[in-house]
Amino acid sequence: MAKFPSVAVLLITFLASFVSSNGQRSQNTIERDQQAYTTLVYPRIFDSILVDRPETPVQFRALLYLNLANWNAWCNYHPTAADSFGRTRFKRPLSEHTLQNKNTATMYALLRIYESSPQSFGGADGLGGYRNLLRELNLDPDDRSQNMSTPVGIGNREGMDLARLMKIDGWNAQGDETSSDPQYAQFFADTTSYAPVNTPWRITFPFRWQPLLENNGLGFFFRQEHVVPQAGSGIAMSLSPADVRRRRVPSPYRNSFAPFGRLFRSDIRVLSSNAKKVFQRSAQLTEEKRLLAELLDNKLSGFRTKENPFGTPSIGVVIRFGILGPRLDLSLDNEIIYGLATNIAVFDAMVTVWKEKLRHDAIRPTGQTMKMLFGDRKFEVWGGPGKPNTRIRAGEWLPYIRTMPHSEYPSASSCVCRSIVEHALIFTNGRDDFPFNLTFPKGSSKIYPGQVPSEEVTLTINRLTDWDRLCAQSRLDAGVHFEPSIEAGRQLCSGIGRSAQDTVDTLLSGKSDFKFLKWLPTDVERFWEED
Amino acid sequence: MAKFPSVAVLLITFLASFVSSNGQRSQNTIERDQQAYTTLVYPRIFDSILVDRPETPVQFRALLYLNLANWNAWCNYHPTAADSFGRTRFKRPLSEHTLQNKNTATMYALLRIYESSPQSFGGADGLGGYRNLLRELNLDPDDRSQNMSTPVGIGNREGMDLARLMKIDGWNAQGDETSSDPQYAQFFADTTSYAPVNTPWRITFPFRWQPLLENNGLGFFFRQEHVVPQAGSGIAMSLSPADVRRRRVPSPYRNSFAPFGRLFRSDIRVLSSNAKKVFQRSAQLTEEKRLLAELLDNKLSGFRTKENPFGTPSIGVVIRFGILGPRLDLSLDNEIIYGLATNIAVFDAMVTVWKEKLRHDAIRPTGQTMKMLFGDRKFEVWGGPGKPNTRIRAGEWLPYIRTMPHSEYPSASSCVCRSIVEHALIFTNGRDDFPFNLTFPKGSSKIYPGQVPSEEVTLTINRLTDWDRLCAQSRLDAGVHFEPSIEAGRQLCSGIGRSAQDTVDTLLSGKSDFKFLKWLPTDVERFWEED
Repeated sequence: MAKFPSVAVLLITFLASFVSSNGQRSQNTIERDQQAYTTLVYPRIFDSILVDRPETPVQFRALLYLNLANWNAWCNYHPTAADSFGRTRFKRPLSEHTLQNKNTATMYALLRIYESSPQSFGGADGLGGYRNLLRELNLDPDDRSQNMSTPVGIGNREGMDLARLMKIDGWNAQGDETSSDPQYAQFFADTTSYAPVNTPWRITFPFRWQPLLENNGLGFFFRQEHVVPQAGSGIAMSLSPADVRRRRVPSPYRNSFAPFGRLFRSDIRVLSSNAKKVFQRSAQLTEEKRLLAELLDNKLSGFRTKENPFGTPSIGVVIRFGILGPRLDLSLDNEIIYGLATNIAVFDAMVTVWKEKLRHDAIRPTGQTMKMLFGDRKFEVWGGPGKPNTRIRAGEWLPYIRTMPHSEYPSASSCVCRSIVEHALIFTNGRDDFPFNLTFPKGSSKIYPGQVPSEEVTLTINRLTDWDRLCAQSRLDAGVHFEPSIEAGRQLCSGIGRSAQDTVDTLLSGKSDFKFLKWLPTDVERFWEED
Repeated sequence: MAKFPSVAVLLITFLASFVSSNGQRSQNTIERDQQAYTTLVYPRIFDSILVDRPETPVQFRALLYLNLANWNAWCNYHPTAADSFGRTRFKRPLSEHTLQNKNTATMYALLRIYESSPQSFGGADGLGGYRNLLRELNLDPDDRSQNMSTPVGIGNREGMDLARLMKIDGWNAQGDETSSDPQYAQFFADTTSYAPVNTPWRITFPFRWQPLLENNGLGFFFRQEHVVPQAGSGIAMSLSPADVRRRRVPSPYRNSFAPFGRLFRSDIRVLSSNAKKVFQRSAQLTEEKRLLAELLDNKLSGFRTKENPFGTPSIGVVIRFGILGPRLDLSLDNEIIYGLATNIAVFDAMVTVWKEKLRHDAIRPTGQTMKMLFGDRKFEVWGGPGKPNTRIRAGEWLPYIRTMPHSEYPSASSCVCRSIVEHALIFTNGRDDFPFNLTFPKGSSKIYPGQVPSEEVTLTINRLTDWDRLCAQSRLDAGVHFEPSIEAGRQLCSGIGRSAQDTVDTLLSGKSDFKFLKWLPTDVERFWEED
């Protein structure tokens, strides 16, 4: 218990640190700093359970629903905005548009989606803390009233409607699409019957995905499965099914589905050349590159930097809370608008890239791939923190960061980072120069705690577009991608930032944007139309 | 920091609780309660990192080395005992045979093996705490002197020699047998090139091991690899390589290595009949059976019962600390003798059963197996805590506890529990009746916290042999074994308790028992003979 308030205090300190250079906090800043989701619920409840536990697409889905709940509660205290179901009929009169009402509604909406599916938000560990948080604020977590003239009722209703959407959004989060009894349900189980064609020991199709062998460092080895193959056919928010289908990138190879013996020589040459570049980058890993590889790996979290002592200076967090909020002095309303739009961009980018990942089913640059290509040949690679490069057999190599459990092509990072930055530039009307310093204290790495960086390092990132470029490049330095994936991810997702903002603009004007409803089966109970 | 002493106090309370019925603590009890490994180092450092993290065979290896380090330090303050290398030349004169000297030597020996290979003991998290523990006792953790006239020197030397053994014991704990550079080493990586013939999606050989699909409940699915296949060809302590080779159990099937289409009908009938019994047991899961299935699953830990509030009432802990120590009022020396012998029995049993598990490569009763046997047929199975039984398709079924990542036949549990009890009966000269009450507080289950048991439950276990029987049966109730494995495990390991005690008796008399050295390559540097 005792640690929670201090985290909230830390967050406020963190947010405040970005404006302290201006000498004083603006009225907008003060309001933003009192918003329940941003400064209370997320840092106190979700930061710790979301950051390290779920895989990236599950994190993105969680962030989407958290921001939707935030929006759907808030919009009823806004003059024009509709909720994500296009509804404006729950709106409250202007006299009730207080920060306290917005916060109360938001906190109930967030609690209802969380308790309806704890596994969607990193697990149930935060539920007790959340309930305590409400009690501390003299709110009753068990008040499930749907009296729509009260903020509690609005929060409950909006949250419970979103919870119903979460059960039918195509992710199988409850496991009920693959199990007939909840006792035997496996949350997020694959609904597409995806099965890799290679094994960790035998590559039959040299260009297709091979499940990587991971281990816990204590003797338990396990083979990755492709995480949520169904994510590419679940809902998107600002893209219709046809929009997503249309977005495609060609394979860099002439026949990437061929088995051994039926390959094009030119394809093998290109793959080998790409693989050698992976080794070259490993041998050229500077401390700065390693810092960025780690920082930009987890889209929610990374180092505990001085700017962000509780450890979430991810690209999305930095741009939203570190750059745009304070530098543009966003109003609370605009902050919420930005928050929903950027998370819709991230989510839709991820859905799109997932569909393509499954379609291309591409092999990662792992030790096994290297062994297949180069046998026992030795290569010079990074030798560990503070150590010179080392020469090892191709098959022994490991990337600097963990290789994630999904197909290689295209890069989800380059797609998602592009979408975040593209959308941010829309928000700034094209203004790009927002210099930002990130200071990594000595030894603050999670991968090599105490060793990396060897001394305190400050990196200055001058432009929003630099974040995009660094994010994409860091995947190559990290060793988890071949080069063609980076540009493919960027191309694939170009324009999604725009469509995300368009969807939010439509909602803001009080009209419906039903794109995500087009993903639902036609026979689904249309609960958002009940009254 | 603050929590550590209270855990140590808890342990002393726990140990004391077993003798409080006698009215007062004996001199032996007082001495046992002051022994560093049992009451300080293990509960404060290793309990938390060993209990839940490593797989069972890695846990058993850790316990073996911890008890060997304890013995090897202590034996130099004993009139006759040799260390595990057969050495008596470091012995100290009788005047130095104080508990404090024994404890000091022990703590350094344990620290040296731990720091040499943190991954062998559940990870490096406890290292800082261990170093602090020494400092609190005014000992310098960085004192690496090997002055053999001091307890520090003796502890360091014995610990470092054991650490050298740990690097060549066949487990590849450092990963150096499979990697040429430590930066790229994967600890405990398989050295035998074991590769399962089935996948989670396709069973080609219906009787052979199929890697099970697990998930973290948050959307990450992963396929188990067979844990440490090399454990069956690493060292044993009281059995020579020939002894282990000789121990075999026949397959319950006529041809368990045949692929589909070349199977014996009678084999399929037997497997189907065994599989139906698994469902029957699932449908008959009483609360008592579920408590025992969970309690006896983790050989180091289980419920936090009233008798053991910090949660290690495993069979080995209960028999050693809960039953034999207090009821036989063991002297400190006898407690250490018992501790080493029982852990040698456990380790050698595990090595033996591992060799057989790899040889039989047998499929587990998982949902996939059930689907293969019964298709979409429905069966009545357990429906969840507080719920009636449910009828589900065969392939949806999951066992009550986690199916461990190793081949099914024979049961390691039945083998290990048999060895523990067999050895305990040697120690008691055949006395079997030691009634013991285990009280499970309401909701103390780790699998169903707050739900199981629905009310406080006290189970009375009357005899040592009951522990053996319950341990074996609990694997069937848990749903992780077919019936023939249980008796096979017991037969396979019969006599290992005896050989373990014989080895310790030989060491105690100051003679060498070099059985484990027979496992080492002949060209290994014989460091234990240096001086």
